[in-house]
Amino acid sequence: MGYREEFLVKPGAKPQLGDIDPAYKGKHKSHEKAALVIAESLAQIGQWQYLLHADASQSLLIVLQGLDAAGKDGVIRHIFTGMDPQGTRVFGFKQPSAEDLAHDFLWRIHQRAPGRGEVVIFNRSHYEDVLVVRVHELVPREVWSRRYELINDFEKMLAQNGTRILKFYLHISPEEQLERFKRRLEDPARQWKISESDYAERALWGEYMQAYEEAIERTSTRLAPWFVIPANHKWFRDLAISQIVAETMSEMDLKTPPPRVDLADIRKKYHAAMRGPDQA
Amino acid sequence: MGYREEFLVKPGAKPQLGDIDPAYKGKHKSHEKAALVIAESLAQIGQWQYLLHADASQSLLIVLQGLDAAGKDGVIRHIFTGMDPQGTRVFGFKQPSAEDLAHDFLWRIHQRAPGRGEVVIFNRSHYEDVLVVRVHELVPREVWSRRYELINDFEKMLAQNGTRILKFYLHISPEEQLERFKRRLEDPARQWKISESDYAERALWGEYMQAYEEAIERTSTRLAPWFVIPANHKWFRDLAISQIVAETMSEMDLKTPPPRVDLADIRKKYHAAMRGPDQA
Repeated sequence: MGYREEFLVKPGAKPQLGDIDPAYKGKHKSHEKAALVIAESLAQIGQWQYLLHADASQSLLIVLQGLDAAGKDGVIRHIFTGMDPQGTRVFGFKQPSAEDLAHDFLWRIHQRAPGRGEVVIFNRSHYEDVLVVRVHELVPREVWSRRYELINDFEKMLAQNGTRILKFYLHISPEEQLERFKRRLEDPARQWKISESDYAERALWGEYMQAYEEAIERTSTRLAPWFVIPANHKWFRDLAISQIVAETMSEMDLKTPPPRVDLADIRKKYHAAMRGPDQA
Repeated sequence: MGYREEFLVKPGAKPQLGDIDPAYKGKHKSHEKAALVIAESLAQIGQWQYLLHADASQSLLIVLQGLDAAGKDGVIRHIFTGMDPQGTRVFGFKQPSAEDLAHDFLWRIHQRAPGRGEVVIFNRSHYEDVLVVRVHELVPREVWSRRYELINDFEKMLAQNGTRILKFYLHISPEEQLERFKRRLEDPARQWKISESDYAERALWGEYMQAYEEAIERTSTRLAPWFVIPANHKWFRDLAISQIVAETMSEMDLKTPPPRVDLADIRKKYHAAMRGPDQA
């Protein structure tokens, strides 16, 4: 069984995040031994992405969610740096602007959905509207609680238009988070990453877990599944995600598209250019 | 002397493209020997990009221009794939849409200018509005001929707002273009790239050279310089561009930004979290 099956949250199931070990690393002993496996998946992803771009009939949307320091930036840096930037876009969703807030919560998201042939990665996403918004009571319960269904409808529409959707929750322990905060404090090259809200948000860990469990339960669907990725070990997180992405892309039936021109006609033009007076 | 000085078109100078050897490869004998030099520049670019992103006060705009098969896609794939996609965006400018055409020619360009901390690569650009538009007489001469000044004004504004601008013309010979067309014809995996217009545009080579020479002469400025890159050898093209980009970024005075928080206060919070009842 691959990690795609192992970490998938089956539609309708509620993940018990407290029971999932964030330090899990499967059968892999160390980063060194896993590096080759990761490299292999990355090479496959690169090849599939070329075909996705060439084929230009489908697209891939990857949603990354997790608490502060869970490793969202790291996943992007380690896994998606290998993709051709022509055809790959990353959007980070921070505090909505006044214009965003003047619209429904999916308005700013929809504008950034992948076009045919594209891979788009969301660093945070519309899920914040049932996570941070819920935990901080930024809108009343009757508003956020209706959003699960709206999200499912929206994702279904994208999927029916040819978008494959993969959603990853990066699962770390509170101890690991504190350890990462400590590294930021001690390393002058990382101190700029520290934000005032880090510890305030941390104090709401339990509320966030509850919000994540319900969000994942309500929105893990066949067309847009959630995966809970043990993420205390960065290398294991990268290994699992790259394997899931590669496996998913391998099933997208991506092929070099047929020529858009009459090849016999183009051959004639080529031979004429070979013979003809050079225009230069 | 590095390639930045060697290939720079000095403000006010008119490049004589017919006199520049597209097969030039400097002192480098072969791809194999150049690979290490390229890898070194790419590693530097990666480090500078991290700081550009962290610092978030400046940005970098790279404009790639060249005829069909000159290697614009290849440069993006070879040089910019190594950049963190979070912070790097590529925009290809194809035929303008009806909405684009309802506005001035810089309207769609301005929307895609890099934000602070970003690297943006233009695959074709606003220069098409004084190149293809001129060659095919899509607007009258009095319209396109006024655009050089408008472009300079626009680029000056970006530069004054903290954007470094590098513009590369990928210079290939008509024989090399024909050779690349042949490879597309013969390789089934590349046939999808063939477009009807390839040979029609090729027949206008002389007109394009004239348009490029004038565009480069009129718009190579201190704040937004043009470089004519000999591009028959793909590896040499990559070597020269990566060296010029790395050298430019090294002069941008990029540093890790200072912490945005009171570190003493954060240390207190950290120790409280270490002692306190874990919230998980």
